[in-house]
Amino acid sequence: MVQDVKPGGTFLLDCAWTKDELDAHLPSAVKKYIAKNKVNFFTIDGTGIALKRIGNAKVKNTVLQSAFFALANILPKDEALEYMKKMAYKSYIKKGQAIVDLNYAAIDAGADAFVKIDVPAAWATCADDAPKAAATGTRKELVDFVNNIVEPVDAMRGDSLPVSAFKNIADGTMPQGAAAYEKRGVAVYVPVWKPENCIQCNSCAFVCPHAAIRAFAMTEDEAAKAPADTLFAAKPVLKTNYKFTISVSALDCMGCTLCVKACPVTNKALADAKKTVAAEHPEFDPKTAAKEAAKLASAKSAIDMTLMEKGLFQQAAFDYAVANVSEKPEIINNTVKGSQFKQPLLEFSGSCAGCAETSYARLITQLFGERMYISNATGCSSIWGGSAPATPYTVNRETGKGPAWANSLFEDNAEHGLGLTLGQKAIREKLIAKVEEMAADEKAPDSFKAAAKAYLDTKDDGKTNTAATAALVAELEKAAAEGCPVAPSILADKDYLAKKSIWIFGGDGWAYDIGFGGLDHVLASGEDVNVMVFDTEVYSNTGGQASKASQIGQVAQFAAAGKAIGKKNLAEIAMSYGYVYVAQVAMGADMNQLMKALTEAEAYHGPSLIIGYAPCEMHGIMGTMQNCQIEMKRAVDAGYWQMFRYNPALKCEGKNPLTVDSKEPTASYRDFITSETRYSRLAQQFPERAEKLFAKAEDAAKAKYTRLLRYSKLFED
Amino acid sequence: MVQDVKPGGTFLLDCAWTKDELDAHLPSAVKKYIAKNKVNFFTIDGTGIALKRIGNAKVKNTVLQSAFFALANILPKDEALEYMKKMAYKSYIKKGQAIVDLNYAAIDAGADAFVKIDVPAAWATCADDAPKAAATGTRKELVDFVNNIVEPVDAMRGDSLPVSAFKNIADGTMPQGAAAYEKRGVAVYVPVWKPENCIQCNSCAFVCPHAAIRAFAMTEDEAAKAPADTLFAAKPVLKTNYKFTISVSALDCMGCTLCVKACPVTNKALADAKKTVAAEHPEFDPKTAAKEAAKLASAKSAIDMTLMEKGLFQQAAFDYAVANVSEKPEIINNTVKGSQFKQPLLEFSGSCAGCAETSYARLITQLFGERMYISNATGCSSIWGGSAPATPYTVNRETGKGPAWANSLFEDNAEHGLGLTLGQKAIREKLIAKVEEMAADEKAPDSFKAAAKAYLDTKDDGKTNTAATAALVAELEKAAAEGCPVAPSILADKDYLAKKSIWIFGGDGWAYDIGFGGLDHVLASGEDVNVMVFDTEVYSNTGGQASKASQIGQVAQFAAAGKAIGKKNLAEIAMSYGYVYVAQVAMGADMNQLMKALTEAEAYHGPSLIIGYAPCEMHGIMGTMQNCQIEMKRAVDAGYWQMFRYNPALKCEGKNPLTVDSKEPTASYRDFITSETRYSRLAQQFPERAEKLFAKAEDAAKAKYTRLLRYSKLFED
Repeated sequence: MVQDVKPGGTFLLDCAWTKDELDAHLPSAVKKYIAKNKVNFFTIDGTGIALKRIGNAKVKNTVLQSAFFALANILPKDEALEYMKKMAYKSYIKKGQAIVDLNYAAIDAGADAFVKIDVPAAWATCADDAPKAAATGTRKELVDFVNNIVEPVDAMRGDSLPVSAFKNIADGTMPQGAAAYEKRGVAVYVPVWKPENCIQCNSCAFVCPHAAIRAFAMTEDEAAKAPADTLFAAKPVLKTNYKFTISVSALDCMGCTLCVKACPVTNKALADAKKTVAAEHPEFDPKTAAKEAAKLASAKSAIDMTLMEKGLFQQAAFDYAVANVSEKPEIINNTVKGSQFKQPLLEFSGSCAGCAETSYARLITQLFGERMYISNATGCSSIWGGSAPATPYTVNRETGKGPAWANSLFEDNAEHGLGLTLGQKAIREKLIAKVEEMAADEKAPDSFKAAAKAYLDTKDDGKTNTAATAALVAELEKAAAEGCPVAPSILADKDYLAKKSIWIFGGDGWAYDIGFGGLDHVLASGEDVNVMVFDTEVYSNTGGQASKASQIGQVAQFAAAGKAIGKKNLAEIAMSYGYVYVAQVAMGADMNQLMKALTEAEAYHGPSLIIGYAPCEMHGIMGTMQNCQIEMKRAVDAGYWQMFRYNPALKCEGKNPLTVDSKEPTASYRDFITSETRYSRLAQQFPERAEKLFAKAEDAAKAKYTRLLRYSKLFED
Repeated sequence: MVQDVKPGGTFLLDCAWTKDELDAHLPSAVKKYIAKNKVNFFTIDGTGIALKRIGNAKVKNTVLQSAFFALANILPKDEALEYMKKMAYKSYIKKGQAIVDLNYAAIDAGADAFVKIDVPAAWATCADDAPKAAATGTRKELVDFVNNIVEPVDAMRGDSLPVSAFKNIADGTMPQGAAAYEKRGVAVYVPVWKPENCIQCNSCAFVCPHAAIRAFAMTEDEAAKAPADTLFAAKPVLKTNYKFTISVSALDCMGCTLCVKACPVTNKALADAKKTVAAEHPEFDPKTAAKEAAKLASAKSAIDMTLMEKGLFQQAAFDYAVANVSEKPEIINNTVKGSQFKQPLLEFSGSCAGCAETSYARLITQLFGERMYISNATGCSSIWGGSAPATPYTVNRETGKGPAWANSLFEDNAEHGLGLTLGQKAIREKLIAKVEEMAADEKAPDSFKAAAKAYLDTKDDGKTNTAATAALVAELEKAAAEGCPVAPSILADKDYLAKKSIWIFGGDGWAYDIGFGGLDHVLASGEDVNVMVFDTEVYSNTGGQASKASQIGQVAQFAAAGKAIGKKNLAEIAMSYGYVYVAQVAMGADMNQLMKALTEAEAYHGPSLIIGYAPCEMHGIMGTMQNCQIEMKRAVDAGYWQMFRYNPALKCEGKNPLTVDSKEPTASYRDFITSETRYSRLAQQFPERAEKLFAKAEDAAKAKYTRLLRYSKLFED
């Protein structure tokens, strides 16, 4: 951290530590370097200042920048602060004077909030730290990878690695699961579970973007061996004897609060408390009332945010459960609750706090992850999905299986996914022919014939074929041992035997624009692939640009004056084929509809397209991304986003394939969009144009809903 | 032609000439070479044998191939013929034994139908031919290009041209109109017009793929100066005094017979004659009856096919009219008849005889050619549209203006067209701002203000803006002469002043598949571009492959067992945007609907997509491409192809934007598809699968029509 500071140079560390704490926490090498090189050492509590003095964590960067200029003497301090303020005005006046003032306050605060540390002479001769413990675990290839590559790269020593360190991953393949070794501990506040009030709905785990809060069902034995700090609900899980716990990995949590906001118990407690406070203290101003209500609600809530220090005690229970608690198949199913007893195979990614994309993707891995292939378009999902050196996709601890993930380019990801599909299919069809050949042999034992029949009967059904394949493989091994000449050639490719679940992931920039030609081609192909579009409407990963997914009136790069034409109807385009499963979903608006869509899409023997509404940091939503899931519901209530499912399989049953899940809007479209800065800034900059575009957008949304209802009439008999 | 024959070698010439005719027609250099090098010289009348002995012009190649093997002695003659027959069986048995037998007959016929020519000794010393006359004409840059580049390249001497020959076209720009200098004279039969029976509907010219038959209206003076052979109708054109003639360029004609088959008079004469013959000679077999009917009909027909020798007399009249007769604006309009008094700006291309694509494209150039930009995707339309060294696109003789044509790649043609649009728009908007600036100047003369107003009022209307621009330019020139500082900068870019008509041309391989991502993007952009898709359903230019435009049951490369999934609904995809003009047309089914679609599309101030059904040589239609236009009508009658127009402009008028022009089908879908070999061969190879797919295709066609009718209900109030 300090190795590039020149002797006598200045070093400013952002931390909340006192001098004694510094002594305890700083690595020995850092202390030695500072003391030996007479470094001018300062600290600043950026987070504390931003949160406590300014009241907004987001201005922390500005605080630090101001401190930097105050210390660096690149130009006179007063001049530097003046420039910063001018720039802040220029950058933020579009968002209103309040935001400008916030930045002014941060600049003023940062300029003198640093503390000079008198460096103890003893630091120069302090004892060396014990070497960092090597990573351990049951998967040798992963542990080696973490120790030999992840750890040095994360410590910024990647450029010192010899080429030979990569010889086992020369083809670019990296073992899944390394992200679990990167404990970042970045959250200031983390959730803490309160078993006494919990109703075991699992909504908290369902929405978590980082798989940092999980539901576990433990046997008596598992519970008995759990760390002492483990919390348990009084009631068992459903009608079983399993003990229920919600575990929090404080060190992986991003502090987004989505779990708290998704908790129906906590929500009700807060609503009740607000009513009580309003009745008992009509004199309170809104801020005080809100604080009082939060305090009052706490007693009845099932989950609360608490300071990291206070929430960290849950880590041991989490780590124990992850490493030791078995999955309980009888309580795992495709419901909101049941899905959360399954291990997420996407965890601890680097996505933003509150990210909607990883909430969707994590859920999908819980449903299909052990037999998933993922072809991932370039975009946010390829960044949080596979940032070197660690991947957040992982394998199921018990089966050792997890998503096989690859990132192709922006412009050919769908084609890449189709290639995976066709390759898998070609190999599998050959294997199936061989199984049929063996089963047709009169001399084949009955047990083989039964296993082959079960396998062949379920070959297109991902849900049941995995178990049938396992049974078949056992029979094939028997046959091979008895000298069957065909069995070994099947066993050589046994990984391809079971029905796979092929997914193509990408954002709106990929699906609506750059990769659309290929997406269309793949959907048209009729092949059994599943496409998940994380629709942020705004090319999030490249910093926010207008795309064909952007809506009328939205401000973005290349649409500074608001986009004038409507959003492309990707769903309707896909529905025009007739044989493509299509759904629009919004997790925060309707978790059950999402579960239905995912389940139907994956079960459908043909191409499927799921378009998931994904609010994003770039939207500037009210209350920040803490309200990501709530914003989805607001979008649906306002008629901004429509939920529906088009299932071609229903046509064969003589039913209308299109189910419109969204109700007639109940909230104001205008209120919704103007609560997001991607729209409201238009009204500030171009009020007249905004008026026109917003009215047009509202009409377009109404027309879209009407059209959707009428569209379903295309299929009536 | 003979320069590569070794001394004593063998030379076989395909021609119908006698020995004396050879002496008269062969170039002196060829005769000398043959005589001096003691070449064994043979002739064979490939066309005559194929047509008269075998009864099918298409086997000519087989006849020639057989003659080649018989003469070449590469392997023993009998063996060679045996191999050829085996190969013919393998290649054609899919199409039925009749086609195999046809090829057997051609092989047998070719093997001994060549004639040894006794080369006269005098050939060795015959006088040199007069040098070929240089091309002449009024456009110097074109004439130079033809003499310096086209002529040597066409004579296979292109590789002898020095680099300096290309210095004036180093950027790849070639002058329009060179194809008119390539008189190929390939037709065996050409149309001959019979003015006494003509009703002046101009349908013959309307369907001609090669602009080789044209309608002219001549003043008394023009008619008086016309060559003696010029034929005139007794009645004048409409209510004018102009004399009406239909002129045929026999040397540019491909002999496709579309003009004859489009003639309502000739059709009626033939129908009447068939009835008469049937009544008077019930004993005639069908072939004899057809021949007799054709003879009988001839007296009442308005156009007939005749041998080239007999039809060539019309060439002088055609050449005169093209070079001298002025356009008559008062009779030119966007009707079937009126459009054909306008000079086609696509003529004499290398497209196949009967090609539907060039019929559409020729018509479009008549309507908008003088202000057209064309961005052409790779495909058939880029081959017939711009095969080096000559281009069939040309300029209007009177205005000197014609389509500016460029060919981009397969995968980015739409984007290329959008680039042309945006470039033109950016320059034009700057010019418009300057015109407005000048017009706002109080001191500007009234005549300028009036011209500027007329220009600005019509700036988005291609039809009227051309004339307004001409008037404005005259005023600008006046202003510049009087020292106005702004006018010269407008005049410098005056070619960009008038409203242009921007077109993007491509086939189904481009529009449905490879270029679709870009096409979608361009349609979504909302820009004022016009897209014409020549939909042959079968990637014609690459030899016929299944595409997303191919229909269920169609046999093609990559779909040897018939395509199993339906055709992509490109029109519906485009309609999903709401602001894209979309039409499906079929020239031979409804000429008036086509005229409406083209006119509306071009007038619409936004993106337009016209999908034109284009039967193709690859379809194997009954009676060959002579029935191309008739096949379009059959397709519509059978419900195979739907005609409709979706005009967003109608929404503003409170009307339903979707007009379904196709009626409920009246003919059998199954009969239609099985009359084309691209479908019928499936029934021969895979009868059971064919039965299933054909039934599925028929159901899909019915469902598509129902859906189209219901789709129009999406827009009802």
